[in-house]
Amino acid sequence: MTFALTNLNELGAVAARMPVADAAAIKAAMARQNSLTKPPGSLGKLEELAVFMAGWLGTARPVVGRAQALVFAGNHGICAQGVNPYPQAVTAQMVANFTAGGAAINQLCRANGAELSVIALDLDTPTDDFTTGPAMSDAACLDALNQGAAAVDPTADVLILGEMGIGNSTIAAALTSALFGGEVADWVGPGTGSDAAGIARKVAAITAGLARHAGLAAPQVLAALGGREQAAICGAVLAAREASIPVILDGFICTAAASALHAIDPCLLDHCLAGHASAEPGHRRLLAAIAKQPILEFDMRLGEGSGAALALGILRSALECHNGMATFGEAGVSEA
Amino acid sequence: MTFALTNLNELGAVAARMPVADAAAIKAAMARQNSLTKPPGSLGKLEELAVFMAGWLGTARPVVGRAQALVFAGNHGICAQGVNPYPQAVTAQMVANFTAGGAAINQLCRANGAELSVIALDLDTPTDDFTTGPAMSDAACLDALNQGAAAVDPTADVLILGEMGIGNSTIAAALTSALFGGEVADWVGPGTGSDAAGIARKVAAITAGLARHAGLAAPQVLAALGGREQAAICGAVLAAREASIPVILDGFICTAAASALHAIDPCLLDHCLAGHASAEPGHRRLLAAIAKQPILEFDMRLGEGSGAALALGILRSALECHNGMATFGEAGVSEA
Repeated sequence: MTFALTNLNELGAVAARMPVADAAAIKAAMARQNSLTKPPGSLGKLEELAVFMAGWLGTARPVVGRAQALVFAGNHGICAQGVNPYPQAVTAQMVANFTAGGAAINQLCRANGAELSVIALDLDTPTDDFTTGPAMSDAACLDALNQGAAAVDPTADVLILGEMGIGNSTIAAALTSALFGGEVADWVGPGTGSDAAGIARKVAAITAGLARHAGLAAPQVLAALGGREQAAICGAVLAAREASIPVILDGFICTAAASALHAIDPCLLDHCLAGHASAEPGHRRLLAAIAKQPILEFDMRLGEGSGAALALGILRSALECHNGMATFGEAGVSEA
Repeated sequence: MTFALTNLNELGAVAARMPVADAAAIKAAMARQNSLTKPPGSLGKLEELAVFMAGWLGTARPVVGRAQALVFAGNHGICAQGVNPYPQAVTAQMVANFTAGGAAINQLCRANGAELSVIALDLDTPTDDFTTGPAMSDAACLDALNQGAAAVDPTADVLILGEMGIGNSTIAAALTSALFGGEVADWVGPGTGSDAAGIARKVAAITAGLARHAGLAAPQVLAALGGREQAAICGAVLAAREASIPVILDGFICTAAASALHAIDPCLLDHCLAGHASAEPGHRRLLAAIAKQPILEFDMRLGEGSGAALALGILRSALECHNGMATFGEAGVSEA
């Protein structure tokens, strides 16, 4: 079965039919961790990651055979407001770079054992400028969401998500401002490298967008202020959940997209890990809002799924320990 | 040439003959980072790691072909003071577990591409109880130091260091108390799992040891309060430095050992990375004292080189990006 929606408003009812983590597998994985040749708890977060994977893969001995990485790319009408120092053409240029294998995400997927697919979403037709109207129609948002869902391989053991889109740190801050409130400026950062004037333009654009699209429910926020790659990320998160595939989210932009689902029902992100804490200042605020602890903190701010792919390596190490270590009994090691 | 000392007091003069990082390679690596298809600085600490490796491997395009992991094991007379809940026999049992491939470090070396060697140092003859006399003679300390140095493969591109030794979190706290001062209790933590009474015994033992061995210089502190695996770690750090091999230190115990070199001359640890920040509370205090930022923070507290081996995977990813990414010019991507 493939996840697909026919109406954005169906998102509100989706949580009720989604699988949850396997409590018996979690319990068995925790028991195994406590039997391994180490002081209990001494592998710290590696133990937590192994137990998390056990819950979603439904086994006490979870293995990552296939790791799928999906990077969604989109273009944004908000660039008309001067929110990014790079030309919009860079989105397509970077997609070509992904295809040629020259981007950071290519190296990080190879190094950490993920199969990368890049999905360019209508790059020649940017979404509309949200200061003058909705970025997308509900139908366009739904189409992107379903494309994201369709891209998920239901046989994968873990899904890494990332994005590319000139201007999309403004999209992310607009989404988080609308979904979580607070001062707009607290959600806005330099993105790819905006100076103070560029940041002021981002704040002004978002403030105008919030005024124009006030009072919308989360699915409609995604259409009015989001972009195609944001909707696709939501679709991929939901399709993964339907197949009980754990997800590693990337930085601010990826997490902001997924946070639209959190606003609908927080449990929709229960199968998601935060791969890292980005240097983009809104990300730590956002992680706190959705109650996720980042795996890595490396001051990265590239997107593309780079932080998530790097975290995959940690996840693999966690599972190697979980599955490969001897127990006290097997090794003949005395306990405390 | 193999690093070896004939007298512990030679340590004081060793710094002057050690190689330093290659400034031209560092500059060239930084220039390369700024030419790659990403906003400058957006790979955060991955960029710093690549530049660090360039400096020590002496090339703008550093590659880790061979990663060597050395785990040194020793036994400690201080266990007579009831400082550890595990029996001393566990040191040898864990060495057997390393040899059989069943410990965490075996899985982490396999997952992150390191070749592991375990060196058991006179396990049947524990060092002496430092509350009643020096833990080792200068000659025994020198012998362990030279064994550590001799274990380093001068053709390795990076060296991971770790240790095993029941009671050695007490040794580590004794060393850091003697070398850096402050309250003994601030350097002492639960180690493998001591309760409050066990921690009090650790503090009492260290306080007695400090009183007995007051006023010693750093090389003699290593002999009086240290252990064989601590001296071996110092030797390995020095031998690696002599061959310009960068080192990844592990947690509190490994770093405390190496900090004896820092006390002699801080530049002796310039080629060392801190693989992680341990959950053992003294480690963050120690990292601050030697001005090292940890790569990972996973609440691990196992030793064995586990945090260092995990950090090797991050280092590998950093170098994959550094060497494999296309430049703006190569990829035809527009700059800001």
